[in-house]
Amino acid sequence: MWELRARIRPVIESRETPAGRIFDWAIQLMILVSVVSYTIETMPGHSEEFYTALKGIEVSLLAIFTCEYVVRLWVAERPWKFIFSFYGLVDLISILPFYLTLGGDLRAVRAIRMLKILRYSRAMNRFRLAFIEIRAELAVFAIASLLVIYLAAVGIYIFENPAQPQIFRSVFDGIWWAVATLTTVGYGDVYPVTIGGKVFTFLVLAVGLGVVAVPSALLASALSRTRTQE
Amino acid sequence: MWELRARIRPVIESRETPAGRIFDWAIQLMILVSVVSYTIETMPGHSEEFYTALKGIEVSLLAIFTCEYVVRLWVAERPWKFIFSFYGLVDLISILPFYLTLGGDLRAVRAIRMLKILRYSRAMNRFRLAFIEIRAELAVFAIASLLVIYLAAVGIYIFENPAQPQIFRSVFDGIWWAVATLTTVGYGDVYPVTIGGKVFTFLVLAVGLGVVAVPSALLASALSRTRTQE
Amino acid sequence: MWELRARIRPVIESRETPAGRIFDWAIQLMILVSVVSYTIETMPGHSEEFYTALKGIEVSLLAIFTCEYVVRLWVAERPWKFIFSFYGLVDLISILPFYLTLGGDLRAVRAIRMLKILRYSRAMNRFRLAFIEIRAELAVFAIASLLVIYLAAVGIYIFENPAQPQIFRSVFDGIWWAVATLTTVGYGDVYPVTIGGKVFTFLVLAVGLGVVAVPSALLASALSRTRTQE
Amino acid sequence: MWELRARIRPVIESRETPAGRIFDWAIQLMILVSVVSYTIETMPGHSEEFYTALKGIEVSLLAIFTCEYVVRLWVAERPWKFIFSFYGLVDLISILPFYLTLGGDLRAVRAIRMLKILRYSRAMNRFRLAFIEIRAELAVFAIASLLVIYLAAVGIYIFENPAQPQIFRSVFDGIWWAVATLTTVGYGDVYPVTIGGKVFTFLVLAVGLGVVAVPSALLASALSRTRTQE
Repeated sequence: MWELRARIRPVIESRETPAGRIFDWAIQLMILVSVVSYTIETMPGHSEEFYTALKGIEVSLLAIFTCEYVVRLWVAERPWKFIFSFYGLVDLISILPFYLTLGGDLRAVRAIRMLKILRYSRAMNRFRLAFIEIRAELAVFAIASLLVIYLAAVGIYIFENPAQPQIFRSVFDGIWWAVATLTTVGYGDVYPVTIGGKVFTFLVLAVGLGVVAVPSALLASALSRTRTQE
Repeated sequence: MWELRARIRPVIESRETPAGRIFDWAIQLMILVSVVSYTIETMPGHSEEFYTALKGIEVSLLAIFTCEYVVRLWVAERPWKFIFSFYGLVDLISILPFYLTLGGDLRAVRAIRMLKILRYSRAMNRFRLAFIEIRAELAVFAIASLLVIYLAAVGIYIFENPAQPQIFRSVFDGIWWAVATLTTVGYGDVYPVTIGGKVFTFLVLAVGLGVVAVPSALLASALSRTRTQE
Repeated sequence: MWELRARIRPVIESRETPAGRIFDWAIQLMILVSVVSYTIETMPGHSEEFYTALKGIEVSLLAIFTCEYVVRLWVAERPWKFIFSFYGLVDLISILPFYLTLGGDLRAVRAIRMLKILRYSRAMNRFRLAFIEIRAELAVFAIASLLVIYLAAVGIYIFENPAQPQIFRSVFDGIWWAVATLTTVGYGDVYPVTIGGKVFTFLVLAVGLGVVAVPSALLASALSRTRTQE
Repeated sequence: MWELRARIRPVIESRETPAGRIFDWAIQLMILVSVVSYTIETMPGHSEEFYTALKGIEVSLLAIFTCEYVVRLWVAERPWKFIFSFYGLVDLISILPFYLTLGGDLRAVRAIRMLKILRYSRAMNRFRLAFIEIRAELAVFAIASLLVIYLAAVGIYIFENPAQPQIFRSVFDGIWWAVATLTTVGYGDVYPVTIGGKVFTFLVLAVGLGVVAVPSALLASALSRTRTQE
């Protein structure tokens, strides 16, 4: 029994051996199948047979991912550490809800399985390192961004609420406008119509674009530094 | 009396002592309560009781911030310098209007209290240093941006006014279009429909994106230099 | 006569003497008055009297700028060189059209006066230097951007023309879509509705954002290098 | 015969001789004529005569490009290598479809001729070098971007599908929304209306803008490094 466990462990936990690589690719393929099958399932107008087929795929994948979790738990040197590790929790959340609520509509939870693929992504580790490096900076500028967004929201609410009471109903609508404007997405569902509101928008953009752009710029440059260090 | 003042001062003005930290956190919490209560108050459809409760919170916070201002003034080594300092003015504007117009609708002024939180933000100082460093550059490129925006506004007005007299009514509408376009927000409330206007938009974007993006880029790089120097 | 000319020249051509600075500020003020008066004139619904007042300002400024041109020509060491210099041509175009077509509606030409202000802008010189430095690069990447825009335009036309024949009428509409999309302005007047068109948009953005962003990035970094060299 | 071939080869394959330069310019001009004629042809409402003229230009250009291909094949030192080279394939695809389906509507294929112009573009080579340098990085971050886009799509579908079942019909509509939002294009055809969806959009933008912006930033900086190395 222990001998088997010692032989299976490298297959499960490492990508150095041929068998390990095949196992990894198989899991990744099944995550992809799960994701694609979920995406197709959300489309309306499927026939009864097609829906049953998707349901079958789903149940099979649930069984496979359950086996994967049990095996990973079994071969782990320190099982409790595995259970409470990030990837251990992701693996658990990918299967547990279906056992807790047999037959319930938990389609959304299946999207979480996408996170299982992070285990195989070298980018993930780089993001983590870059994030740790500039954690303090990001917090500081994130607060500055929130401040700019909130003050912009209050300002536009004061200017536009009298003119468009149905669009800028409260400061919350102002926050939504500030987010869409300062990120330059600009959906066009909310925008100022008064002269005061337009002048205020100009000032907010002049000041705010720099502030809101800083955190992304910091992350991008930290990532490229992490790349150089490797 | 002076002894008490000497004992209270470090609590108010520094964050080194435990008591000073507690005082700072308490004030920050109350700023947050004030901001959240204002934001909720702007939402329509509150019951009479809920509105009265919000009013009660507001009056209590007004009393607390008034006490804070009086104590800060009392412990300040040079009271006049405190009154005319940036944070002293913010503290004053956060409370004064309510005493000047008892019962008036001055809800908007309450948003200014948000600025009180800047006192506790290290980012603020960094922004100030970065801003001072590139002040001359920013002024120069800000003028260049204004020039580009104005010339773009006149151009689009000339092209689009005959085709859309209700949308591009005057050069002011052109300025609004130029701001939304050159910052790439693009709400979609104003856009060219003539071939001339579209070709002109293409040329304006080709020239103007670089110019308008420079001030933000300068600020971002100055901020990251300030960071390195610390 | 020559003595007078020798005494006036430093006032006109340099900003070192107090009189020269006053002259420069006066001209800049009048350019601003001309621009503001033009901007206000474009607004509809003015009374007859107000319109007459604006007309009076316009005629006075025309007289002043004509004098300025004559004096500049008179004091110039090499008059022909002045006439065909960039600023000499801007000065001429600011006044000539009004003499050629007395009473004609040449309001638009007045916006060109804005360019006179470039004479006083240090930023202008910096832009010129940065532009010369990366002229070759800009040309190369501008062509690459045009290629991406054109291929994107043809692609979206092929995908969307059958579904939206009134929106994507020809490749020209595709070009307008490509410009608005690749600069991320996204007005929302034209966008794909077919699955093919949406997938194509995703691919175009994945490839094209980098290409189209390069010229602005090159200009911004050249400008900041020019700044360092000064 | 071989002598002729030896004399024609430098004209076709190099740009060093005057004749070679003239040949290159002539081909580039005809590519431009082909592209412009195709663009005009897509416009509706042409008269019968004009359409016939465009058809004539098209047939002539087809003949010329066929000759060009035959000559290039004839002078090539290794004909098979030329046929399967990138530019050889582009040249073939520019003409072959018209011979395979005589009279068929293959207008779209003509846009591929635009790619022929890449042969003359120094930028192309630079893009290729920059691309090779950061190929591994791009793949890694492209996968990270896809992950962010997919998770954003699932999230917005879950929040918005109940409120806007006609707009967010399936996860595919969520993907379209995520692409338009994270690239900050923001057409405004799909956007969240629920509070949950708006808060989720804010979080997605806070996290995703940095991730999606990284590949373009990497490409831009690789391109400017390639420039420095030259």
